[in-house]
Amino acid sequence: MTEAERQPRPVPEHSRGRISRRGLLFGGAVAGVGAAAAIGVDVLTRASASPAAVPTEVPDADPAAETVPFFGEHQAGIDTVPQAHTTFVALDLRPEVDRAGMIRLMRILTDDAARLTGGKAALADSEPELAVLPSRLTVTFGFGPRVAALAPEKPSPAWLGPLPAFSVDRLDPAYGDGDLLLQVGADDPLTLAHALRMLLKDARSFTTLRWQQPGFRRARGSEKVGTTMRNLFGQIDGTVNPAPGTRDFEDLVWIADRSSWARGGTGFVLRRIEMDLDKWDRLDREGREQSVGRKLDNGAPLTGSREHDEPDFEAKTVVGFPVIAEFSHIRRARLADTSRRIFRRGYNFDAPPTAEGISHSGLLFASYQADVEHQFVPIQRSLDELDLLNEWQIPVGSAVFVIPPGCAADGYIGETLLG
Amino acid sequence: MTEAERQPRPVPEHSRGRISRRGLLFGGAVAGVGAAAAIGVDVLTRASASPAAVPTEVPDADPAAETVPFFGEHQAGIDTVPQAHTTFVALDLRPEVDRAGMIRLMRILTDDAARLTGGKAALADSEPELAVLPSRLTVTFGFGPRVAALAPEKPSPAWLGPLPAFSVDRLDPAYGDGDLLLQVGADDPLTLAHALRMLLKDARSFTTLRWQQPGFRRARGSEKVGTTMRNLFGQIDGTVNPAPGTRDFEDLVWIADRSSWARGGTGFVLRRIEMDLDKWDRLDREGREQSVGRKLDNGAPLTGSREHDEPDFEAKTVVGFPVIAEFSHIRRARLADTSRRIFRRGYNFDAPPTAEGISHSGLLFASYQADVEHQFVPIQRSLDELDLLNEWQIPVGSAVFVIPPGCAADGYIGETLLG
Repeated sequence: MTEAERQPRPVPEHSRGRISRRGLLFGGAVAGVGAAAAIGVDVLTRASASPAAVPTEVPDADPAAETVPFFGEHQAGIDTVPQAHTTFVALDLRPEVDRAGMIRLMRILTDDAARLTGGKAALADSEPELAVLPSRLTVTFGFGPRVAALAPEKPSPAWLGPLPAFSVDRLDPAYGDGDLLLQVGADDPLTLAHALRMLLKDARSFTTLRWQQPGFRRARGSEKVGTTMRNLFGQIDGTVNPAPGTRDFEDLVWIADRSSWARGGTGFVLRRIEMDLDKWDRLDREGREQSVGRKLDNGAPLTGSREHDEPDFEAKTVVGFPVIAEFSHIRRARLADTSRRIFRRGYNFDAPPTAEGISHSGLLFASYQADVEHQFVPIQRSLDELDLLNEWQIPVGSAVFVIPPGCAADGYIGETLLG
Repeated sequence: MTEAERQPRPVPEHSRGRISRRGLLFGGAVAGVGAAAAIGVDVLTRASASPAAVPTEVPDADPAAETVPFFGEHQAGIDTVPQAHTTFVALDLRPEVDRAGMIRLMRILTDDAARLTGGKAALADSEPELAVLPSRLTVTFGFGPRVAALAPEKPSPAWLGPLPAFSVDRLDPAYGDGDLLLQVGADDPLTLAHALRMLLKDARSFTTLRWQQPGFRRARGSEKVGTTMRNLFGQIDGTVNPAPGTRDFEDLVWIADRSSWARGGTGFVLRRIEMDLDKWDRLDREGREQSVGRKLDNGAPLTGSREHDEPDFEAKTVVGFPVIAEFSHIRRARLADTSRRIFRRGYNFDAPPTAEGISHSGLLFASYQADVEHQFVPIQRSLDELDLLNEWQIPVGSAVFVIPPGCAADGYIGETLLG
């Protein structure tokens, strides 16, 4: 596949499934006249901030046909209601790939992603029949330090690079770092497998595979949209999370610095956390609830009765101890400075167990925030110092990427850095 | 978990979701009076042969609550409409496990499976909140030669053991054989993960893990129930398949020999077939269609226009060659003796690719037939001799198990052999 064969790229059509305002803006009415220029950033902003960009209900009818618009101010797959399946992949650039090569690669992958997420075959798709059910497919790209260094004249976020060491970490380089992140999510596992193969095949002459981590949540339709996921400890995991479509979410997640090439993007941290299910099994329910600070059955804080009740960290037991213990996860994860919050969109993993039947299960803790240093690191430091869950949860993988902003239909992901 | 803690086992209730006739018989009206004795085999047969035992449509409302009855003449998971996810696991018995130990194990696993498939927590389930959405969970057990040998006075099917060698095979022992098969399927991956963990945890003191192979199809609701799956070659795979609920299916699949402990069970073959997607990609569509004998877009035979049209193997091209080539898969897979047919219920697999991005993808070819030697082996021999698909498909794993019959609510799987 040469670049010439791929040019000119037709305007993607979001003709299948629900048409959102963003899809309409970019795929329909104005795409032919150069969307970014014609609309301007102001409209882009409004379009992406519109609640219409975030599906609030997975429709019953033909859910496999539903698409998530690829083009926009922000990349999809972050404010998208989490799909049932997501695979995170890190690629390393081959030594000879320079800035021009990286631009070629991102043009190709952008084109693939735009087509596939629209339920269309990629160019030269050898199995086009596998592309017809998009099932809310999203493809999200992220850059590691080596890609950022291809454009040294454009400063990248200072936090881009490995996280500081935490005492709980037992990091395996097999799950660490990388040059190019692909986050591919869909409600249908066959759709995901095909999209991932097309992307990896087109990336193959530019990159090698560093790691691949598949994750899952409940199947589409198993629970109401908006239900907080449970992890493999049985915990409701992710109750306190800024809601996509709110100002709070916008402020916490998207990089706002007008001087940065990453404006409209976000910072991404993936932590692979092994959960010691056997050790956890030896803890009784009260111990589990104490360690988290929430009830297991409905996720309510120990001082409340419903999941989203505000925890009362001042409440004391009759003998004067805090109801929500000092070492509890929810107390340690909450910092006084409310700008130090993150957006989580995690997935479970369940790799085959050992011969002795010991689980290799856990959480792909995926965290999105405008400033990794200001938001993620202090929270993780607080948890590192004193979080009872550290007894059962071991971080074994850690990777940080900057997720570039989205692009318009005539652009490519990464153009603000590489172009 | 001691056996004493597990006794007496409460009668399972299939109180959630659609209540089938089988569920009603065993879980409701008569369970309290000793179901098997009270009803008798004749009713068992009618209950399980009833079309009601095979859901024909996944309901839109609360699909996660739908259950597949565990108890019955046959084990579930064979005539069950394939779930989106199935994991096949082979366990090896620890050296010290004798017949009494195997009975204890199967009582425990039967109890676990009955509860979990009914949407209830297993006994001493440490994460009971993960058990509440059964999502058509099924658990199917199979025995290898070593388990069969625990009851030497009861002859087992002669075919139980490794298949004869085929020239296409490149078998890796890491995916071969085993003493105890667990086939765990569900539409929801979290349900499956939790059920599998509970089963493996309870099996751990009796067994070690030999292999675990996860597979997937389209998500629940992505396609109409009854749509033939596509494999990762993009082929419609499994068009010619006896339909559950028909006499044809009953005759081909269930072991009928009244003198056999395996009566009401079936023979199970799992072949792990690596598909060389890169080599396949170099073949044009016409070459692909010739190799299979079917059209890629809708699966119709090259002599027909719709998927289920009967192939015309006599049809010739204008220059006199067969339209469906001699080397085509569908010609080679069809034997003149129509009793030599099998029931397929396969799954795709997609293991992480190599560093160079070469796929480790393929098919978990799961085949069910009353007589492996009479049905599976001659078909495989015909394919082995001349099937163009052998160019792209390499069997790398092979395992054969006998799947025991089902049991009533006061029994356990394997009782006809071990009891």
